[in-house]
Amino acid sequence: MTSELKLDPWGHVSVKDYGRLMETFGIKPFKNILPKISQISEPNRYMRRGIIFGHRDFDKRVIEPLSKGEPVALLTGFMPSGKFHFGHKLTADQIIYYQKLGVKVHIVIADAEAYAVRKMDRKKAIEIGLYEYIANLIALGLDPAKAVFYFQTNHKTPYYRLIQLFSRKVTMAEMEAIYGTMEPSKVMAALTQAADILHVQLEEFGGYKNVIVPVGADQDPHLRLSRDLADRFHNELGLERPASTYHMLQRGLDGDKMSSSRPEATIFLTDPPEVARTKLMRALTGGRATVEEQRKLGAEPWKCTVYDFYMFQLIEDDRELQKIYDDCVSGRLLCGHCKRNAWSLLEKFLEEHRKKLEKAKDVVLKYVEPPKF
Amino acid sequence: MTSELKLDPWGHVSVKDYGRLMETFGIKPFKNILPKISQISEPNRYMRRGIIFGHRDFDKRVIEPLSKGEPVALLTGFMPSGKFHFGHKLTADQIIYYQKLGVKVHIVIADAEAYAVRKMDRKKAIEIGLYEYIANLIALGLDPAKAVFYFQTNHKTPYYRLIQLFSRKVTMAEMEAIYGTMEPSKVMAALTQAADILHVQLEEFGGYKNVIVPVGADQDPHLRLSRDLADRFHNELGLERPASTYHMLQRGLDGDKMSSSRPEATIFLTDPPEVARTKLMRALTGGRATVEEQRKLGAEPWKCTVYDFYMFQLIEDDRELQKIYDDCVSGRLLCGHCKRNAWSLLEKFLEEHRKKLEKAKDVVLKYVEPPKF
Repeated sequence: MTSELKLDPWGHVSVKDYGRLMETFGIKPFKNILPKISQISEPNRYMRRGIIFGHRDFDKRVIEPLSKGEPVALLTGFMPSGKFHFGHKLTADQIIYYQKLGVKVHIVIADAEAYAVRKMDRKKAIEIGLYEYIANLIALGLDPAKAVFYFQTNHKTPYYRLIQLFSRKVTMAEMEAIYGTMEPSKVMAALTQAADILHVQLEEFGGYKNVIVPVGADQDPHLRLSRDLADRFHNELGLERPASTYHMLQRGLDGDKMSSSRPEATIFLTDPPEVARTKLMRALTGGRATVEEQRKLGAEPWKCTVYDFYMFQLIEDDRELQKIYDDCVSGRLLCGHCKRNAWSLLEKFLEEHRKKLEKAKDVVLKYVEPPKF
Repeated sequence: MTSELKLDPWGHVSVKDYGRLMETFGIKPFKNILPKISQISEPNRYMRRGIIFGHRDFDKRVIEPLSKGEPVALLTGFMPSGKFHFGHKLTADQIIYYQKLGVKVHIVIADAEAYAVRKMDRKKAIEIGLYEYIANLIALGLDPAKAVFYFQTNHKTPYYRLIQLFSRKVTMAEMEAIYGTMEPSKVMAALTQAADILHVQLEEFGGYKNVIVPVGADQDPHLRLSRDLADRFHNELGLERPASTYHMLQRGLDGDKMSSSRPEATIFLTDPPEVARTKLMRALTGGRATVEEQRKLGAEPWKCTVYDFYMFQLIEDDRELQKIYDDCVSGRLLCGHCKRNAWSLLEKFLEEHRKKLEKAKDVVLKYVEPPKF
């Protein structure tokens, strides 16, 4: 990945860090296997646009088995530390994409980690897990009847057995190399995440040997630990290395991190229309200082967080996105107009989603048992 | 505890280390509450003879509730790392004593710790847990129908939830102060032991607020961590500090440690008669260099591992024990004769126990579910 990506309508996200990640840890470029995806399906927009930029073993553990009709499981987790926003939707969309391909979806709510590492209030974390994460996933189109949802503190015994056994074959020095200074809570959380990723391979949980874990680029440490543990327990428990994909993180509306703890820069799927509109209208763009200048020089969509919204969320059709990009860099499209277009798309989405979410909230408890304390 | 105890028939065991333990960590002398035991029962021989030398909260959590007819639970654990020997019997006898008083007995087989910390073979540890520990407890008189047995890797979910939650409220520095250098396996084992001790207070496991943990003097670190965690989770989960008793460890037949890993100095409850006899006949005594000298000076029972066997295991009647002691120190009783007397008692016990054990092995699986892997 080089600076030429600046000229690519979906290559503007800073890829320098991701490039280093790939070189250092052996993550492979997703684009190299993109042509093979057609064996199982059309690539989704995150794949096509390079937002999913890297993978490990995706061909071996996803494309090959699916093309042969063999079972594949997906595992991914959500930390119930705040409200569901468009960064989460990026993962949700991928999960739903795989479910439609016949992949068995497993969703973990990381309530143990939220409590022990993030020092979250316990009841609040459980509430958020149910009514923000699981409910939004269902509202976005995940079929709950075909998925498995669980809380880290409320799963079946063999999952916990795995955590116990894992503790034997990893040293504190290895954990510190991956995660930095360790506390008991971080040791538990790391071993628990490894069990999350690997437990679906146990007979008791379906015995899936092909597992895909779609994550944000910042989550690779958990995958590295899980792959090492899979190797170390290959003979004893028959564990295989999981496959993973890595996606870029959509920036917040000020160009910094999108996060529940930065509500002014983050649009939540439950934001009331006027709140969402205000956030979007104040968003950082790639526009010039004056209209004249912009008409002359064109704007810079790779700097624009509204363009991010189009690319990540609002526009499915690549040609349509290309046109916005071209109109922007040529100076034909001005920021005010462009923001209003984005808002009309976003408003429609939020309105429809709100209705689906209310219905989803009513059925959540049919599909998952929250921990009693 | 002072050197005058040397003149006490059951005070000969080196108490220097135990005295320091009590001063440093606030363990109280058991003898001070001995008179109160009569409120609930006759004291057992370990209590009467000062073998149980210390306690925490025994009056508050055992004597008071039992005398009022309130429920009390017992929790103790066995590391399935080797065969069941007379050191284990000391704990077993206490467990059975409490069960007869109406205490609800919970026995944990520490198979997770055996695997992760002691690097034991997993199947072997499970086998030993079932057919050495649980079977011997039943053969010794524990009523399995009234007891709860479980393996650390095969218990109910709220037990594991407790381990997860505990990790939040203890720091690595605290663990290192208690246990020395930490590895992930030791972090897991320590948090698991705390859950073992405290989980019977949860509603899901009976909701016992009065819990007694009888342990050897070397196990106090686990109790200290558990008491701290009980305090830190008092508001959140209603946990109370467990009571504990501390017993001296019976020495091996060479005067050093009795241990499964030192079979020549340790008599197992499954030793064939000729093996047990040979070990006992070779045991270190407190005898003098010559018969003449012994007749003149008397022997030193406080140095004698055969006398240990009388005191800890073979003789229930205190006057009978006193007579052996008196005959020994006066020079009337010589070691050869004394060993033969001990052997006749031990032989009888082993013979009867062997029969009971065979029967117990047949029913073990009725009372506990071993982990599947």
